[in-house]
Amino acid sequence: MNFSIIIYIIGRILQFEGAFLLLPAFTGLIYGEFEDALVYFLTALLCFVVGFIMGRKKITHKELYAREGFACVALSWITMGAFGALPFVFTGDIPRYIDALFETISGFTTTGASILNNVEALSHANLFWRSFTHWIGGMGVFVFMMAILPMLGASSFNLMKAESPGPSVDKLVPKLKNSAKILYFIYIGMTILEIICLLICRLPLFETLCTTFGTVGTGGFGILNSSLSAYSPAIQNVVTVFMILSGINYTAYFCLLMKEFKQAFAMEEVRWYLIIILVSVGIITWNITPMYDNVGTSLRHAFFQVGSIITTTGFMTTDFNLWPELSKNILVILMFIGACAGSTGGGMKISRLIILFKAVKKELSTMIHPRMVRKIRLDGHVIANETLRSVNVYISVYFMILFISLLLISLDEFGFTTNFTAVIATLNNIGPGLDMVGPTQNFSIFSSFSKCVLIFDMLVGRLELFPVLILFMPSCWKKY
Amino acid sequence: MNFSIIIYIIGRILQFEGAFLLLPAFTGLIYGEFEDALVYFLTALLCFVVGFIMGRKKITHKELYAREGFACVALSWITMGAFGALPFVFTGDIPRYIDALFETISGFTTTGASILNNVEALSHANLFWRSFTHWIGGMGVFVFMMAILPMLGASSFNLMKAESPGPSVDKLVPKLKNSAKILYFIYIGMTILEIICLLICRLPLFETLCTTFGTVGTGGFGILNSSLSAYSPAIQNVVTVFMILSGINYTAYFCLLMKEFKQAFAMEEVRWYLIIILVSVGIITWNITPMYDNVGTSLRHAFFQVGSIITTTGFMTTDFNLWPELSKNILVILMFIGACAGSTGGGMKISRLIILFKAVKKELSTMIHPRMVRKIRLDGHVIANETLRSVNVYISVYFMILFISLLLISLDEFGFTTNFTAVIATLNNIGPGLDMVGPTQNFSIFSSFSKCVLIFDMLVGRLELFPVLILFMPSCWKKY
Repeated sequence: MNFSIIIYIIGRILQFEGAFLLLPAFTGLIYGEFEDALVYFLTALLCFVVGFIMGRKKITHKELYAREGFACVALSWITMGAFGALPFVFTGDIPRYIDALFETISGFTTTGASILNNVEALSHANLFWRSFTHWIGGMGVFVFMMAILPMLGASSFNLMKAESPGPSVDKLVPKLKNSAKILYFIYIGMTILEIICLLICRLPLFETLCTTFGTVGTGGFGILNSSLSAYSPAIQNVVTVFMILSGINYTAYFCLLMKEFKQAFAMEEVRWYLIIILVSVGIITWNITPMYDNVGTSLRHAFFQVGSIITTTGFMTTDFNLWPELSKNILVILMFIGACAGSTGGGMKISRLIILFKAVKKELSTMIHPRMVRKIRLDGHVIANETLRSVNVYISVYFMILFISLLLISLDEFGFTTNFTAVIATLNNIGPGLDMVGPTQNFSIFSSFSKCVLIFDMLVGRLELFPVLILFMPSCWKKY
Repeated sequence: MNFSIIIYIIGRILQFEGAFLLLPAFTGLIYGEFEDALVYFLTALLCFVVGFIMGRKKITHKELYAREGFACVALSWITMGAFGALPFVFTGDIPRYIDALFETISGFTTTGASILNNVEALSHANLFWRSFTHWIGGMGVFVFMMAILPMLGASSFNLMKAESPGPSVDKLVPKLKNSAKILYFIYIGMTILEIICLLICRLPLFETLCTTFGTVGTGGFGILNSSLSAYSPAIQNVVTVFMILSGINYTAYFCLLMKEFKQAFAMEEVRWYLIIILVSVGIITWNITPMYDNVGTSLRHAFFQVGSIITTTGFMTTDFNLWPELSKNILVILMFIGACAGSTGGGMKISRLIILFKAVKKELSTMIHPRMVRKIRLDGHVIANETLRSVNVYISVYFMILFISLLLISLDEFGFTTNFTAVIATLNNIGPGLDMVGPTQNFSIFSSFSKCVLIFDMLVGRLELFPVLILFMPSCWKKY
C-alpha cells in the first residue's frame, strides 16, 4: 500500500470539505444563527489545518493502483463523515457523536435515514449542511476534485472507478478530467433546473435549496417532520420528475448533449428503468386507490413513492407503511433494484440485474443446447467475463452483508420486518424502511452498536461494497 | 425434446408410486381402516394402469440428454404429486384437491409444510402415506429406480444429476447403478438404525416409523399437532442426532464404508456444517436460557431446533417463534444455508456457500494483487469455472424466485414476516417459518393461488431450480 499518496489525497479531500463547510456557515450568518455560524467556521478551519498538514506529506511515488484507489475512497469517505459530524455535536443539535456520525454518513451516502425525532428543531445552518451533504455525496467528491484540480494523471481513474456507482464506468470522453467536468456540468444543470421549477411552484428559497439537494443527490433528508407530504401536489410532482430524472444513467444525458439521440434512447438500462417504474406505479395505483379520494391522488402518491424508492431517494408524501402488503412488497423489491448505474442513486442497479437476467437465460439455454456458444450483450456490447464475474461476486457479498447485519442488529430485539427493512434501507441508501423504521419513524430506536452496523451498511452500499471490504483484507495494508 | 422416452419414464415412475401406495393400504388394513385401505388400493391400481399404458409407448430413440433429464425429473415429480394427492381427497381427510396436492408435494419435496389444522384427525393410512412421501422424496425416486432396474445406460446419469441436491454429483463408483445402490444402502441403514434407537426409547412402532421417515428424509411432518414437543427428551435427542446425520454429505458415509477415514473427516463441507451447527447452538443456548428452567433444557431445544432447521427437516420441540429476535434470525439464516450437498436436506447447501465465499475472497485478492492467478479449490480439487458460474447463476435465480413469490403471495395481505418466511420455508424445503406460519401454525391461511405459488417453490427448491425452470423455456419443448 502506497500510504503517502493516500494521506495526501485525504488531506486534499479535507480541504474541500472545509470549503463546503463555509456554505452552512454563511447560511447561519444570514439567518442570524451566529453561534452555529461560528461552529461551522471553526470546523472549516479545523478541516483546512488538518488537511494542510496531511497534504504536506511527501509523496514517495505517484502510482495509484486499484487497491490504493479503493482504500483511498473508503478512507476519505469515512474521514469526511467523521469531520462533517462535528458541527452537529458542537451546535448541540445532535449531542451524541454516534448520532451525528449516523446523520452525516447518511447524508454523504445519500441514504437519508435519520435519527432525529424532530427535524424542525434544527437550526438553518444545520439543516442546510445536512441536505448539502446529499449534494456532495450524490455525484461524489472525487469526481468534483478531478473536475477542478490538476490531478495525478491517468492513474486517478482508479479513484473515479472506486467511487462511481454501477458495474462499469465509462469515460465519457478520452480525458478523465473532462469526463468529470461533464458529469458535474449535467449535475449542476439538473440542480439549477429543479431550483427554478420549485421556485415557480412558490416554495421558499431555503426549502427549495434543501429539497433540491435531497432530490438530485437522491438523498432524501426532508426539512419538515412530514417530509414532503405538506407540500402542494405541484411541488410533489416536480420532485417526482426530478427524482426519476436523477436515477437515469448520466451517460444518457451526455448522449443527449452530444445530440446522439438514438444512442440515448436505445439504452437498455434506461428503458428497463422506466418500464419498471411504470409497471410498479400501475399496480400500486390499482392497489391503493381504495385508500384515497380518487385515482388522481393515488396515482400521484404511487408515482412519488415509486420514484422515491427506486431512485433510493427516500422522500415521502404519504405513509406507505399503511399501504396494502402487495404495494409494500413492491416497494421492498424496488429497494433492492435501485436506480441506473452511473446515476446518483443506490441499490443494486438496473444494469447489474439486466446482466444477471441475461446470464440466467444463457445458462438455461446452454442446458437445452449444450453446444451453443452465446455471449451476453448489453446495448450491443459483449459483456466481458470479468464484468460478469464481478457482478456475481457483488450479489454474493451483498447478501452476505445483508444477513450478517440483520443478525447483528437483531440484538436490539425489534421485529423482523423492522430489522430487515432497516438493513436494506441503509445498504441500498434509501432511507425509510417499514414498520418501526417506516417513513414516519426514524432510526433513533437503535442502540449505538446497531447504529455502527447501519453506518457501515450505508458506506458499503454507497461505495459498492468492495472499497470498504478491501480494508478488512490484511494483505491490503502491506507496505511496498 | 425426446417425448417418447419422457413418457416412458414417467410411466415407470407411476408404477413405482403404485407399489409405494400399497404400504399405506396395508397400514389401513392393520388398523381396521378398510375404506381408507380400499382407497389406497384403488389409487395404486390407477397408478399401475396409467403407468402401464404410458410405459408401453414406443421409444423412438434412447438418448437422454441433459434437457430430457431435467424435464423428465420435473414432470415426474409433478406427476407423482398429482397422483399421490388423490387418496387424501378420496378418503375425505383433505377434501380440497389443492390442499391435498400441497400436502403431498410438501411430503415428496421433504418440506413438511402442512395445511392441516388437526393432524391427529387423519387415519393411520393417511398419516403413514404422508410421512412415507418424505422417505421416498428424501433420497429421490430416480435413484431408487436406478438402483433396482436395468436402466437406459450411461445417459441416465442425467436423471440422477437432475434429481440430486448440490452443485456437483459424484458418481461414488464408476457404475451408476452401483452408486445408486450404495446410496440407498446407506439410506436404509440410517433408517433402520433410527427405528431401533427410537424403539429402545419406547416410542410405539407406528410413531417410530413415521418419525423416522420424517427424519432421515429431512421432511418434518409430525403425526401429533405438537410435532415432537410431547416426546421424552431421550427421543428428542435421538431425532436431533439423526437429523444432523441426515444432513451430512452421503459421500462421507461412503468413504467411511470404504474405510477411507481420513478422506471422510477431511471434507470441508462437513467440517463447516458441524462448525455452523455448534456456533449457532452456542449462541442460541446463551440467548434463550432465560426462557427455560435450566441450561440443559435450553441446550436440548437449541440443538433440536438448529438441527431441524439447518437440515431443513422442520420438526420442533418448542415454539421458536417466541424466541428472542437474535435466535429467530439465526434460524432464518440457517434456513437459507441448508444442509450439505449430496444429503437429503435442502436449502442452498453448504458447499455452494463455501464456493461463493472463496470466490469473494479471490475477487478481493485480485483487487489487491491484480496479476495474481489463483484457483478456487474445494477439498483440494480445483473448482471448474463452469461449476462456479452455475453456482452464481443459482444464487441469482434463487433470489429472483424468492422475490417474485413474495410479491405473489403478498396479495393475501398477511404481514411481511409471514410472507417472507413462508417463501423461504417452502423454497428451502424446511416447513415452518415465523409468525403466522410459525412452528405451531400452518399454511391453511393462504389462498389457493398462494398455495400454488408455494407448491411451485417447494418443487423448484427440491429439484434445485433448473429442472423446473427449463420447462418454461419454449425452446425446451421443440421436438427433434
